[in-house]
Amino acid sequence: MSQSQTLAIDAMGGDFGPDVTVAAAAAALKQKPGLCFIFTGDKSRIDKVLETHSALKDVSDVVHTSKMIGSHEKASAALRNSKDSSMRLAIELVKDGKAQSVVSAGNTGALMAISKIVLKTLPGITRPAIASIFPTVKGKTVMLDLGANLTCDAEVLTQFAVLGAVYARVVMGIDTPSVGLLNVGTEEQKGHEEVREAAAILSAVNFPGRYHGFIEGNDIALGTVNVVVTDGYTGNVALKTAEGVGKMTSQFMRDAFKSSPFAMLGFLLASGAMARLKKRVDPRTYNGGMFLGLGGVCVKSHGGSDEVATMHAILTAANLVENGFNQRVCVEIEQLMNQESFISAAVMS
Amino acid sequence: MSQSQTLAIDAMGGDFGPDVTVAAAAAALKQKPGLCFIFTGDKSRIDKVLETHSALKDVSDVVHTSKMIGSHEKASAALRNSKDSSMRLAIELVKDGKAQSVVSAGNTGALMAISKIVLKTLPGITRPAIASIFPTVKGKTVMLDLGANLTCDAEVLTQFAVLGAVYARVVMGIDTPSVGLLNVGTEEQKGHEEVREAAAILSAVNFPGRYHGFIEGNDIALGTVNVVVTDGYTGNVALKTAEGVGKMTSQFMRDAFKSSPFAMLGFLLASGAMARLKKRVDPRTYNGGMFLGLGGVCVKSHGGSDEVATMHAILTAANLVENGFNQRVCVEIEQLMNQESFISAAVMS
Repeated sequence: MSQSQTLAIDAMGGDFGPDVTVAAAAAALKQKPGLCFIFTGDKSRIDKVLETHSALKDVSDVVHTSKMIGSHEKASAALRNSKDSSMRLAIELVKDGKAQSVVSAGNTGALMAISKIVLKTLPGITRPAIASIFPTVKGKTVMLDLGANLTCDAEVLTQFAVLGAVYARVVMGIDTPSVGLLNVGTEEQKGHEEVREAAAILSAVNFPGRYHGFIEGNDIALGTVNVVVTDGYTGNVALKTAEGVGKMTSQFMRDAFKSSPFAMLGFLLASGAMARLKKRVDPRTYNGGMFLGLGGVCVKSHGGSDEVATMHAILTAANLVENGFNQRVCVEIEQLMNQESFISAAVMS
Repeated sequence: MSQSQTLAIDAMGGDFGPDVTVAAAAAALKQKPGLCFIFTGDKSRIDKVLETHSALKDVSDVVHTSKMIGSHEKASAALRNSKDSSMRLAIELVKDGKAQSVVSAGNTGALMAISKIVLKTLPGITRPAIASIFPTVKGKTVMLDLGANLTCDAEVLTQFAVLGAVYARVVMGIDTPSVGLLNVGTEEQKGHEEVREAAAILSAVNFPGRYHGFIEGNDIALGTVNVVVTDGYTGNVALKTAEGVGKMTSQFMRDAFKSSPFAMLGFLLASGAMARLKKRVDPRTYNGGMFLGLGGVCVKSHGGSDEVATMHAILTAANLVENGFNQRVCVEIEQLMNQESFISAAVMS
C-alpha cells in the first residue's frame, strides 16, 4: 500500500548535506514509489544531486534558502534565529499542509523546539516524546521517551504509553502490543512516585495495548514487551548505554578474530554469518528518532547518517503517514481522556 | 601483599547455599593465602562442605543458625525479622570487630537495610551506594550508585565521586582517577539540577580524582572515565540495559555461528579466541556489588552466582579491606568537608 504523500526534507541537515539527504530520498523512492519530496536548502547544491536521479527529480520541489542551523547551537538560540532556515522551512511545509512529514538530520534540540512551536502537540498530548526502534532477542521493540523530557509525570507517561502502543499497532502491525514501564524492579512498590502512579493509571484504563507491568533494563534487549515507556533522562541513558555496549562488543570481536591465525581463518569461513549478524543489529536500519505527539510527523535522522541510514529515517516518516499514525493517536487519546478510570486515576495522582 | 583478615560469609545466601559459598571461599583462599572465614548458617551443611576443603577448614569458624532471609522478602519486612538470620549474624560479626568484611548472595534490599542499621555509614557519608566494576574498551571502570538510592542530591553525588575515586586509587591503582557524572549530554546546561550542582561542586573542590565533566551512556563501555557517578535509578537501568544487550549479542552470535556449515567450522577454528572473548566480558569476573560508604566492608554477590563468581565477590571484599578502603574514605571525606570551596558550593546548592 503506497499512497501518494509528500515529505519535506531538510536537505542541509546532518554532516553531509544534500549529497546524502537527496541521494537517500532517491533510494527511499525506489522502496516506496508514490513518495513526493520538497527539499529545503541550498538550491544549487540540491539540484546538482537531483540531476543524477531523474525519477526523484520528477517528484521533487526545492525551496531555496541559504540559511541553516548549526549543529552545536543551543536549542533556545537556534529557535530565536530559525527564521528562513532550511530546518524551519521544512517544518513549516508540514504546518501549511504542503507536506505530511518532515525529516531532518540537523540539531536535535532545535528540531524539537521549532517543531513544538510550529506544529504544536496533538489535542490531549501534553508533551511530545522521542521514540525509536530497537533490535531485541524476540524482534523489535519501540521505546520512548529518549530525551525530549527529563522528567515526566504519571499522566505524561500514560500518554507515551498510548503513543507507543498506537505505533506498535498501526506501524508494526501488533494487534495488542504489550507495554512496560521501565523501573528498577518489577515489584509494585519499586521506583519513583511517577512510575508507580503511571502503573496505577495504565492498570485501570482501556488503551490500545496491554499493560505488562514494570520492566527492568535487561528487558529492553530481551524483547519482554513491544513498547518500553520511560522518562527522557532514563531513556536517553539506556539508549546510549546500549550503543556503547554494542560498540565495545564489536571491538572485542575484532580483537578476538585478529588474535591468532586460526581465529582469522575461522572469521573468513564465518564471514557470511558475521555479515548477517552485523546487519541484524546495524544501527542504520534503526535510524530515525520519531518525535511522537506533535501535530505533524517529524523524524530526526542521526547527524552522521549515510545514505542507507537516512533512507531508513525517510521511510520511517513515510510509514507513520501512510498508516495514519497521528489520526489514530487523536482518536485513542480522546477515548482515554473520556474514561472514568483515567479521570479518577489522574485526579488521584 | 596478603595480610591476615577475616571475612564473614553468609553461607546460606544465594541459590545454592553452602555448596557454593563454602567452596568459593576455598577457591579464594588459594588465590589469597592469609584469609580467615566465619560462616553463618546451617552448621551441618557448612561442615559437610568444609570437610572436603581441609586448608579452608583450618582457618574457618562457623556460627550456627537455622534462620535465613528469603530472597523475595521485602526489605522492610526482612529487616524486622532479621534477628539471628545468617545474613544479620554475618553483618554483626563485622560490627563486633570479629570480621573485617561481610559477603552475602542473599536478598539485596535486606542486605542494604540491615547493613545500614548495623554498620551505619562512615562519618560524613550521608548514604551508602552500590558500586560495581565494568569491562570497557579501555580496561575497567567503576560505577555507582547502582540502585541503593533512587534520587540523590548534589552533595550525595559528590560523596559518591569521592567513594569511587578512592576505590579507583587504592584498589585499582590509578593515581588520579577521572570521574564523570552520567547525564544526557556533555554541555554544562544539560540535565537535572542535581547533576548540574554536583558538577559545580566537583569542579570547585580538591578530591582524590580529576573531575572529567558530564558523560553520556555510551561513555560507560567506551571507558571514557575511570569512575562513573550517577543516581541509583539511572545507574540500575544502565547496568541492566548493558546486561540485556550483552545477552542479546551472545544469542545473536550463537545464531550466526549455527547458521551454516561454514560458520560452524569457522567457529571451531576461532573457538580459542571466542573463549578468550567470553572470558573478557564474563559477568562472573565482575561479580560483587560493593556497598560503599558503610562503616564496614559489605559485598553483595549475585544470587545465581556459581563458585567462580562467588570467589570473585569474596576477593572483592578482601581487596577493599587489604587496601584500607574505608580508612582512606574517612580521611578524604573529612578533607572534602573542610574545604571552603565545598562548603560554599554545598551552601549554594
